[in-house]
Amino acid sequence: MWTNAQNLALLERARAVIPGGMYGHQSTGMLPREFPQYFQRASGSRLWDVDGNEYIDYLCAYGPNLFGYRNPVIEQAAMDQTVQVDSATGPAPVMVELAELLVSMISHADWAMFCKNGTDATSIAMMCARAYRGRNKIIAARGAYHGCAPWSTPLRAGTTHEDQANVIFFDYDDIESLNQAVKKAGSDLAGIIATPFWHEVFVDQFLPTKAYAQAVRRLCDEHDALMIVDEVRAGFRLSRDCSWGEFGVQPDLSAWGKAIANGYPLSAVLGSEKVRQAASSIYVTGTFWFQAVPMAAAVATLKIIRSTDYLKHIQEIGEQFRVGLEGQASAAGFRLRQSGPSQMPQILFEDDPDLRVGYAWARETLKGGILVHPYHNMFVSAAMTTDDVRKSLDATARAFELIKRERDHLPAPTNASLLKRLEMKGRLPAHA
Amino acid sequence: MWTNAQNLALLERARAVIPGGMYGHQSTGMLPREFPQYFQRASGSRLWDVDGNEYIDYLCAYGPNLFGYRNPVIEQAAMDQTVQVDSATGPAPVMVELAELLVSMISHADWAMFCKNGTDATSIAMMCARAYRGRNKIIAARGAYHGCAPWSTPLRAGTTHEDQANVIFFDYDDIESLNQAVKKAGSDLAGIIATPFWHEVFVDQFLPTKAYAQAVRRLCDEHDALMIVDEVRAGFRLSRDCSWGEFGVQPDLSAWGKAIANGYPLSAVLGSEKVRQAASSIYVTGTFWFQAVPMAAAVATLKIIRSTDYLKHIQEIGEQFRVGLEGQASAAGFRLRQSGPSQMPQILFEDDPDLRVGYAWARETLKGGILVHPYHNMFVSAAMTTDDVRKSLDATARAFELIKRERDHLPAPTNASLLKRLEMKGRLPAHA
Repeated sequence: MWTNAQNLALLERARAVIPGGMYGHQSTGMLPREFPQYFQRASGSRLWDVDGNEYIDYLCAYGPNLFGYRNPVIEQAAMDQTVQVDSATGPAPVMVELAELLVSMISHADWAMFCKNGTDATSIAMMCARAYRGRNKIIAARGAYHGCAPWSTPLRAGTTHEDQANVIFFDYDDIESLNQAVKKAGSDLAGIIATPFWHEVFVDQFLPTKAYAQAVRRLCDEHDALMIVDEVRAGFRLSRDCSWGEFGVQPDLSAWGKAIANGYPLSAVLGSEKVRQAASSIYVTGTFWFQAVPMAAAVATLKIIRSTDYLKHIQEIGEQFRVGLEGQASAAGFRLRQSGPSQMPQILFEDDPDLRVGYAWARETLKGGILVHPYHNMFVSAAMTTDDVRKSLDATARAFELIKRERDHLPAPTNASLLKRLEMKGRLPAHA
Repeated sequence: MWTNAQNLALLERARAVIPGGMYGHQSTGMLPREFPQYFQRASGSRLWDVDGNEYIDYLCAYGPNLFGYRNPVIEQAAMDQTVQVDSATGPAPVMVELAELLVSMISHADWAMFCKNGTDATSIAMMCARAYRGRNKIIAARGAYHGCAPWSTPLRAGTTHEDQANVIFFDYDDIESLNQAVKKAGSDLAGIIATPFWHEVFVDQFLPTKAYAQAVRRLCDEHDALMIVDEVRAGFRLSRDCSWGEFGVQPDLSAWGKAIANGYPLSAVLGSEKVRQAASSIYVTGTFWFQAVPMAAAVATLKIIRSTDYLKHIQEIGEQFRVGLEGQASAAGFRLRQSGPSQMPQILFEDDPDLRVGYAWARETLKGGILVHPYHNMFVSAAMTTDDVRKSLDATARAFELIKRERDHLPAPTNASLLKRLEMKGRLPAHA
């Protein structure tokens, strides 16, 4: 029997000693209150919350979990390194091995720098682009998430006007808008930062056109500016290389994080030869950036990426789940908006501006032992099996059944933060 | 017999795939070439480099190692958590326990937020201060290290003018200079960020006066601005509480990192009640910020901090080393500049503007199995023993002996980066 008493008790304690009880992308503050905030165990495709409820986890730690929680091969590599050295006065030899491995696997890369946060990686890439020709302007797509430093965080509380004074925004996948941004930057264009596909909250995901990707590359070349691709979220789930390789487009700089060490804390910036000097000229560092254990985990993770058919597997698992949901939704009289690559699915409901249907469905799915998200893209891991999908679809079938019955009585979300975000995204009219 | 062939070979490989072969605070690029860049093992007070040389390590991972590498109690706590859950879709209960523990131990703290880099902690504290009254200006001491984000990194390559447009600099421990900075900020003063003591590279360290610390507090109060103390480097090595407690001065926000989890990757921002709402309003997050293992390691570390006399021990160990060095230096005809708290010692030589004496001494000490630094503050760990100090002093005695003999023939450093930094610090005249 599903219960959440322990979770609610812990949240109550948390509210006393953590602002808002929790913060950041893992906060359940805008989710249905049934969503567990705290977890006590993880293994393979499963998570257990503090009340002992078991879930097939389609969030995968919001990306890092690519090969299953506590993957035995990766855990062994981490353990072998742990007993030798982790944080020390300098790195371990595995840092060089990892840099060599990444350079051998990522087409555009001639060098690597390691850091901790995805935000570190996008920020360092931006600094490299600025140092390259001593220019200032960075072009970024309006509304694309590239981290939460003062220059990038989507909510602007605590930042200043100047923090974004050198960022020029344009509309994603719109070549004319991009052209105008480039014109605006003039001779001060340092670089363009691109997201491999549109994977923002509350809206459908989509891949840009090949023409758009090629335009980004061409404009950078024409202006001797650098092209940065932010692979932090999509990295190694779309491709074993940079995501726009299929478009014939290679960046000068790429930012990586999340899945590269299967959950161990590591991010990276990869760069082409022509950026090496610029990269050497900037001063960036962090207390824990040279930890050996996450690097050993990354080497093990990359070897699995290189040598297995995991990519086909996560696509197939995602597709099985997608097709199954489509059938269930139709049968129950709902129209789903399933978007993005099947292995990084976004699931929204048609005609559901305030998410009341999506929230009810996600809540009931959750109670059936499946962790899905009503407005954030999800992640499939290679530890998921066809049997997991079958179990998942059993739970979602019951959820559709229930929301079909209660369709006309589903409560509108009242969470003020959520309503404000929905308004920002244009899903709700202002002051709705 | 000390050798460094493996280290040099690895550095050669690294130069192909990492800009400059290495970057950041752990780079040996400006140190004598004998300094090992890569390490293969760590235990207690010892490090082993890739050539198998054993060192008593006075760098302590540049701070994190407070209770010895692979401290068994802390490692056990980390392992117990590892087998349950680390990176997942939400935090583990240990996050709440850790926040409660910090709030109980740090006088000014009513809440905690966790992150990864020291830079994350100082940046979040700055954002909280700005969000508090919607103001922009942050006052910081000229030349004080508060991290390496675009607003703070000491070398400005890759940054823009606007990145520091809202930071007003003043001279540390100079109340008149601080007053002028406050005047300059006018009604837009968000906060003052303070370093507990002066611990910058290439120069003597010093504690500020009590009057200065009190002036920082008073000015913040008078202007309804927030006082931030950056405890990242000094935290838990000067005190079990904020470092200026002995001055009767408590901050509104404090930034912590390095030693709080004995090497596991974790940093934190602690805040007072009046900043809670501002802290809830900003959006900051990171892929790995809610990892459970570093939090479990931090709980174990804090319990040792709370329950043992480690602070007295590291002070005594530092003092034994300092007194021994003083005697050896005098006997050999050198005058040392030993500054800072004995447990975070800085060791420079008098009349050594280009560091040739310090470099030669550090190099010979290194070959004797003791890792010291010729221009960065060092760190004593609680794993160090009186016997370690005795061994250390045997090695330093031989180093003094040697540099005494070669005193008039010591080569001047020729490293261009080093010379430029020495020039910036005013140790060398421009274009020396």
